[in-house]
Amino acid sequence: MQNTSTLYAAIDLGSNSFHMLVVREVAGSIQTLTRIKRKVRLAAGLNSDNSLSAEAMARGWQCLQLFAERLQDIPHAQIRVVATATLRLATNASEFIQRAQEILGCPVQVISGEEEARLIYQGVAHTTGGDDRRLVVDIGGASTELVTGSGAHSTSLFSLPMGCVTWLERYFSDRSLTTENFAAAERAARKVLLPVVDELKRHGWHACVGASGTVQALQEIMMAQGMDERITLTKLQQLKQRAIQCGRLEELEIEGLTLERALVFPSGLAILIAIFDAMKIDCMTLAGGALREGLVYGMLHLPVDQDIRDRTLHTLQRRFMVDADQATRVQRLATCLSRQIADDWQLDPLSLELLSSACQLHEIGLSIDFKQAPKHAAYLVHNLDLPGFTPAQKKLLATLLLNQTNPVDLSSLHQQNAVPPRLAERLCRLLRLAIIFASRRRDDCVPELTLAAKEETLALTLPASWLTRHPLGAEMLQQEILWQSYVHWPLEIHHS
Amino acid sequence: MQNTSTLYAAIDLGSNSFHMLVVREVAGSIQTLTRIKRKVRLAAGLNSDNSLSAEAMARGWQCLQLFAERLQDIPHAQIRVVATATLRLATNASEFIQRAQEILGCPVQVISGEEEARLIYQGVAHTTGGDDRRLVVDIGGASTELVTGSGAHSTSLFSLPMGCVTWLERYFSDRSLTTENFAAAERAARKVLLPVVDELKRHGWHACVGASGTVQALQEIMMAQGMDERITLTKLQQLKQRAIQCGRLEELEIEGLTLERALVFPSGLAILIAIFDAMKIDCMTLAGGALREGLVYGMLHLPVDQDIRDRTLHTLQRRFMVDADQATRVQRLATCLSRQIADDWQLDPLSLELLSSACQLHEIGLSIDFKQAPKHAAYLVHNLDLPGFTPAQKKLLATLLLNQTNPVDLSSLHQQNAVPPRLAERLCRLLRLAIIFASRRRDDCVPELTLAAKEETLALTLPASWLTRHPLGAEMLQQEILWQSYVHWPLEIHHS
Repeated sequence: MQNTSTLYAAIDLGSNSFHMLVVREVAGSIQTLTRIKRKVRLAAGLNSDNSLSAEAMARGWQCLQLFAERLQDIPHAQIRVVATATLRLATNASEFIQRAQEILGCPVQVISGEEEARLIYQGVAHTTGGDDRRLVVDIGGASTELVTGSGAHSTSLFSLPMGCVTWLERYFSDRSLTTENFAAAERAARKVLLPVVDELKRHGWHACVGASGTVQALQEIMMAQGMDERITLTKLQQLKQRAIQCGRLEELEIEGLTLERALVFPSGLAILIAIFDAMKIDCMTLAGGALREGLVYGMLHLPVDQDIRDRTLHTLQRRFMVDADQATRVQRLATCLSRQIADDWQLDPLSLELLSSACQLHEIGLSIDFKQAPKHAAYLVHNLDLPGFTPAQKKLLATLLLNQTNPVDLSSLHQQNAVPPRLAERLCRLLRLAIIFASRRRDDCVPELTLAAKEETLALTLPASWLTRHPLGAEMLQQEILWQSYVHWPLEIHHS
Repeated sequence: MQNTSTLYAAIDLGSNSFHMLVVREVAGSIQTLTRIKRKVRLAAGLNSDNSLSAEAMARGWQCLQLFAERLQDIPHAQIRVVATATLRLATNASEFIQRAQEILGCPVQVISGEEEARLIYQGVAHTTGGDDRRLVVDIGGASTELVTGSGAHSTSLFSLPMGCVTWLERYFSDRSLTTENFAAAERAARKVLLPVVDELKRHGWHACVGASGTVQALQEIMMAQGMDERITLTKLQQLKQRAIQCGRLEELEIEGLTLERALVFPSGLAILIAIFDAMKIDCMTLAGGALREGLVYGMLHLPVDQDIRDRTLHTLQRRFMVDADQATRVQRLATCLSRQIADDWQLDPLSLELLSSACQLHEIGLSIDFKQAPKHAAYLVHNLDLPGFTPAQKKLLATLLLNQTNPVDLSSLHQQNAVPPRLAERLCRLLRLAIIFASRRRDDCVPELTLAAKEETLALTLPASWLTRHPLGAEMLQQEILWQSYVHWPLEIHHS
């Protein structure tokens, strides 16, 4: 029984789907054991008098019987079950909840819209990197949450009565993807938004983050189509036009859109367009988590003060027993080299932060084997959950780690979509040089380096004595000049 | 400086190559950081009067300059440098050694043949699984070591003056791969072996293990050609015929033989054939390590009493934070099921041990992500160093883990070469059933199961009440019956 005490479960009885998340706490971080999602479509079973149909309730209870089996092995204090919009609304909710509690053997809490918004914000704060003064948008089945906050603290919380299931039923009930249906859906959404826009704008934000299926679907579409991962109003409008071309819901076909998400995609898109429009949002990225993650992190009492990306990097270093001193040595040298050419090479702060992250993780592949360690590092970063990093950022990190040494695979650097290809090449070169000159694993053996850039030509000046005192380093550097030349990266060496 | 204290280096100045191995001690196991090998061909620089040529010495010193750079950062007590056959023999060895010590900054020890044999045995004992009453064979450039032992202790030690470089120079100096050259090489080897055969046979062995490049090359050839990994006299004779067909050394071409190993392959092969012949060896497998590993493990003072495979499994569970209780629960259930049908399904002890190992590691993929965890598990096991498991056994484990759930990929089960395809399928089915019935992660929720086998049809009897009390388990079982039926594995369920 000992091992069950590190298990936690969060269940969310949503308007479209029921979800169960079971995690294990390992070394201060979360390891997901199970994610089960069942499309119960509770909201679709809400009659005109706001009573839940017997069929909808039966679908819900059947799903909970499956969840119940897993729950039996988790301490009660480590389970939270919450119900949202549809069960807030249903006049006969208590009937459903009572039986649900019997099945699950633990309390089910119908949470207020405000509490839902607060939990979503917590889930985002624990799993999303970037500027921490944010606007969070979560479009659910029957409600949409909008939250502003800074770091761990939300500053304004709203839960609005619109969602992708209810909007589907109301504005696309004829299953037609017409300009008119979209216009009506957007108009209605703007009306719902009107009373809260000013208050949210007053609090303000530097970054906008989206949770929920609609934003997840957009992310998948953009990845599949090789676009960069930032969601903009222009992209949303283009997707709407594409949907209108398809004509009918059952004929909707967009590269990267899965069947599972297609049904409620147009209605979610209409709501999102209205939100971008009303709030004047420039761009939005995908959150690393939302309601269920908020529930789990809430039970774990992990601090959110630390930068999420930092926490992720340090947790991974610990879990995969990375030599953290060496990682920091390489990171410091990479930063020192980058600063000298940041202007010439237009290295923006986010790119520099991603380079630092790559340095912190570059030896993670050694935990598998030293042979093909760069390949293993890329595999790990590609597949690990990295709270704080978006999918595109993860892909860039994996690509940089893959190319940390040995011949360069240019095509992989060009296939990521977090930064422009040229910039990825530049970050890669800086990482490679830092690794070579820190290879002695001692601070007092890192040489003083001067770096200058003229277009893609790098001129590196190092103490002449260093090469004679470091024959292995000299051999590595010679090899590196050759490798860089293969991909037309001129690297000149000067002696001070 | 703190991190360097966990570094260890072993350098071996061999007759054909110089090797450096740098490892880090992590959680009681060894993580390889660097392996550098340079073909110095010292033996080829030995003149007829047994003096080393100036050129050969220069090649050696140049190589050591590279090694020296890495050594500077490792505490002296954690470095061992040994020289073997050629430097035992060379009349001017002291000249070479003196300069070598200046370059490396630490002592170089010319070890006796007996000490070399002892160290090789230690390296094998720490890295090789299977029956621990063994005969170890290591064919070097200028000497061949033969050792018998039991567990950590060697019982007889021999170092014979023949090796793949010296035999190449003596019996294939015309570079012709003729029947005559092979015959002469084998005859000479048998003569060298004659005085020691009786003593070795008197000590006896249950398993024969080969180290060194010749055996490594054979392993690679057999893997590339899809053969099982056991080396037999028949296979060696076939390879000799193939070499004779090629005619000349520079035209030698065998699928799976790398260029790097080709030059000294025929001479090594001739020696190995003589050894098989003289010692009446049935079959030989590849050791997980030899001289350098013996040096490293000797400095680390790790106990060798524990079964090597057990130590590997437990180390990996710790490193990748596997739920060891659950692993053991699945292993116990798999063993209990296997025992009931061991006769019908001809499950031999080694196969059952490999099934147990698969159980111990089956959740290792969760350390990367729960999505595609079986794929991650297979990736890890395929790429990790697994002391005690041969390459073919590793491949079988990886394949079983890949197929632990979800639709079965039959072709992968047939591509491994550790056990016959049919047997791999049977082990896979037992693993999958054990995982399903232990999925509650509690000993008191594992049902009493009765299993019977008739050809490939499995009849499983379980308490009727179990299915009603475990709806998730019942769903998993239904799905499993379907998946097994797709690959024509009949699975009948009966109720007790």
